[in-house]
Amino acid sequence: MASLFMFEKPLGMRDSLPSLYEKKRTIRESLATTIRSWGYRYLQTPTLEYYETVGAESAISDPQLFKLLDQQGHTLVLRPDMTAPIARIAASRFQQTQYPLRLAYDGNVFRAQEREGGKPAEFEQVGIELIGDGSVSADAEVLSLMVESLHQAGVKEFTVAVGHVGFLNGLFEEIVGKRHAAGKLLQLLYEKNFVGYKEAVDALSCSVEDKEKLTRILTLRSAEDWFSAAAALSTNGKAINALRELQTLMQYVKDDGLDAYVKVDVSLVSHMSYYTGILFEGYARDIGSVLCNGGRYNDLMGKFERDTQATGFGIRLDRLAAVSELVSNEPLPIIILFSPSQRKEAIQKARALRNEGKHVIVQEQSSLENIDDIADQACEVLDYTDGKKEG
Amino acid sequence: MASLFMFEKPLGMRDSLPSLYEKKRTIRESLATTIRSWGYRYLQTPTLEYYETVGAESAISDPQLFKLLDQQGHTLVLRPDMTAPIARIAASRFQQTQYPLRLAYDGNVFRAQEREGGKPAEFEQVGIELIGDGSVSADAEVLSLMVESLHQAGVKEFTVAVGHVGFLNGLFEEIVGKRHAAGKLLQLLYEKNFVGYKEAVDALSCSVEDKEKLTRILTLRSAEDWFSAAAALSTNGKAINALRELQTLMQYVKDDGLDAYVKVDVSLVSHMSYYTGILFEGYARDIGSVLCNGGRYNDLMGKFERDTQATGFGIRLDRLAAVSELVSNEPLPIIILFSPSQRKEAIQKARALRNEGKHVIVQEQSSLENIDDIADQACEVLDYTDGKKEG
Repeated sequence: MASLFMFEKPLGMRDSLPSLYEKKRTIRESLATTIRSWGYRYLQTPTLEYYETVGAESAISDPQLFKLLDQQGHTLVLRPDMTAPIARIAASRFQQTQYPLRLAYDGNVFRAQEREGGKPAEFEQVGIELIGDGSVSADAEVLSLMVESLHQAGVKEFTVAVGHVGFLNGLFEEIVGKRHAAGKLLQLLYEKNFVGYKEAVDALSCSVEDKEKLTRILTLRSAEDWFSAAAALSTNGKAINALRELQTLMQYVKDDGLDAYVKVDVSLVSHMSYYTGILFEGYARDIGSVLCNGGRYNDLMGKFERDTQATGFGIRLDRLAAVSELVSNEPLPIIILFSPSQRKEAIQKARALRNEGKHVIVQEQSSLENIDDIADQACEVLDYTDGKKEG
Repeated sequence: MASLFMFEKPLGMRDSLPSLYEKKRTIRESLATTIRSWGYRYLQTPTLEYYETVGAESAISDPQLFKLLDQQGHTLVLRPDMTAPIARIAASRFQQTQYPLRLAYDGNVFRAQEREGGKPAEFEQVGIELIGDGSVSADAEVLSLMVESLHQAGVKEFTVAVGHVGFLNGLFEEIVGKRHAAGKLLQLLYEKNFVGYKEAVDALSCSVEDKEKLTRILTLRSAEDWFSAAAALSTNGKAINALRELQTLMQYVKDDGLDAYVKVDVSLVSHMSYYTGILFEGYARDIGSVLCNGGRYNDLMGKFERDTQATGFGIRLDRLAAVSELVSNEPLPIIILFSPSQRKEAIQKARALRNEGKHVIVQEQSSLENIDDIADQACEVLDYTDGKKEG
């Protein structure tokens, strides 16, 4: 083979070399310890799913799906998220289990990228789903577990923004009415294109007062009096209900001592269509991209013919690794150099040291070009050679 | 959605439910502990690779590859094995590192299946590669680490068969000569189609004595006097060399106290094209399928323009999980039931218990249909409700 592509990987595909691998492993184990201690049970779903089932129900747009045909001519997708596969399992394999179900996952998801140097097209996601519990307590549990997971995974400074899609839907229904115009406003908020949002509001054919209401939601982020300020913007039942749920949630957050990390942002939109209630996003300080997000998705399970309420979160392991202060334990090995006549003793010594928990490389001397180079990679070199050291 | 496919997964795709997941996790961690203690460093490669690089160099036949086109029109494959991607990395990202390299991996590989109910099309493989060391000591290290890994992963009774592709190549070259006929014999040995092998030998146009030699290799499996018996079959230099390497290897195996697990089988063929020297396969007792295999592949690195010798093994985690006696630790949780007025106390109690290492579910009572059902899933139920128990 001699090819331009020889060392190349497809667009958005990455290798993890040993030090990053160990960091990710340390974080992954920390997350698993926390998540399991809250009574969540991990499961695993396949990388490939039918487009017709999981692909079409996922929250990821069609151009981002990796599609292929199987030998029977069905369209398959590389799973673009984990929530739809978990919903498939919850509706089938756990059909006999009483709700609520507490399930967790750790898997790679795939989203095709258009440009080089952009986002990864494959990344590992760890998350949970709490299925069959519609209470605000359930939302609080998921939010608290996400905060606790970030903590345990070594993220020291972070903020979680919390919103409620019902508030925006209610407010827009009351003022904007038209489904299309409301959808456009949601899209702009989702893109965090606040300039575009203001322009779109300006262009609406409603009263100046209503326009002011629509733009005021942007100023309520992290406001202390968010509840009264937001409640003054709408009389719509859905909107008021949503604010009450948020209020209960924030009381729980305070009870749990997490209010320093969690802020209400009534303008928060996490996905264009998916979440149906409380939703949230976590950011590490000084990092623009979203570390994790979650929320309530009460419509998905019904698509698998088991209509029930659900909430959950997902954490991106690649981004967590970039901000985590956890230190992975990767000790330098002891290297035992041997010549064939002393191989047996060298191997026995290695076994004894490994039983003490040491990392030990046993290396035949004649295979080395330069002994000094390998010594640099060791904490200690033991000599089981015939004394005819080379290099 | 209402579809025939609603709960279906693509051919050969599997879910791992929690108990299997935990078993696999326990085994995976045990393997990682062992492999790291021998000085191997884990890394991770992407699920998708270019067909032109890794796909074409893999040991897996073309019809078994999952192929797709990326947005730029390149053909991608879901990696069918891990050795070719590791070779790609070793030849590029580790170009400055002195050999030998000791690398390890844990990843899913993909092989398309034609029939329902057959083999999995996606399975997890854990393995190592020792790159840049052509000594028999290196072969012995890889073989010993494989045996140790099986032990530590809870496989009590297993056998590893060891062969050498150089012996068969030399023997066939001497007797059969023709490349095509020799290839056919190798293929039949690879398929373990010994009846077909004997028929093919019968059909050859060589002497009765030579035919007897060709069939005698089948009777040498696990024979005590394998060396003298095999050496009597050929005067070909390659074949004799191969037997000497096997003899040295078996001396090392004996020195290391592993001879009860390792048997020579000079008729062993692990892959049609790939291995270039010593090769081996491990079987658990009473299980027909191969748990793990490995061997020397001195030609692959050259295809990535960094010609060097290499050896390694891969273990199938799904098959290991089927025979491992390791017990995974999945304790039943404590369940704390609460009503909203006592939520704060319930959460505090849960936190204290989790700090003691307990698994704790905190559940709002009103979300439960039947309290007795959830009690069955707990080791203990703590009551933080207002005493108005339902169900």
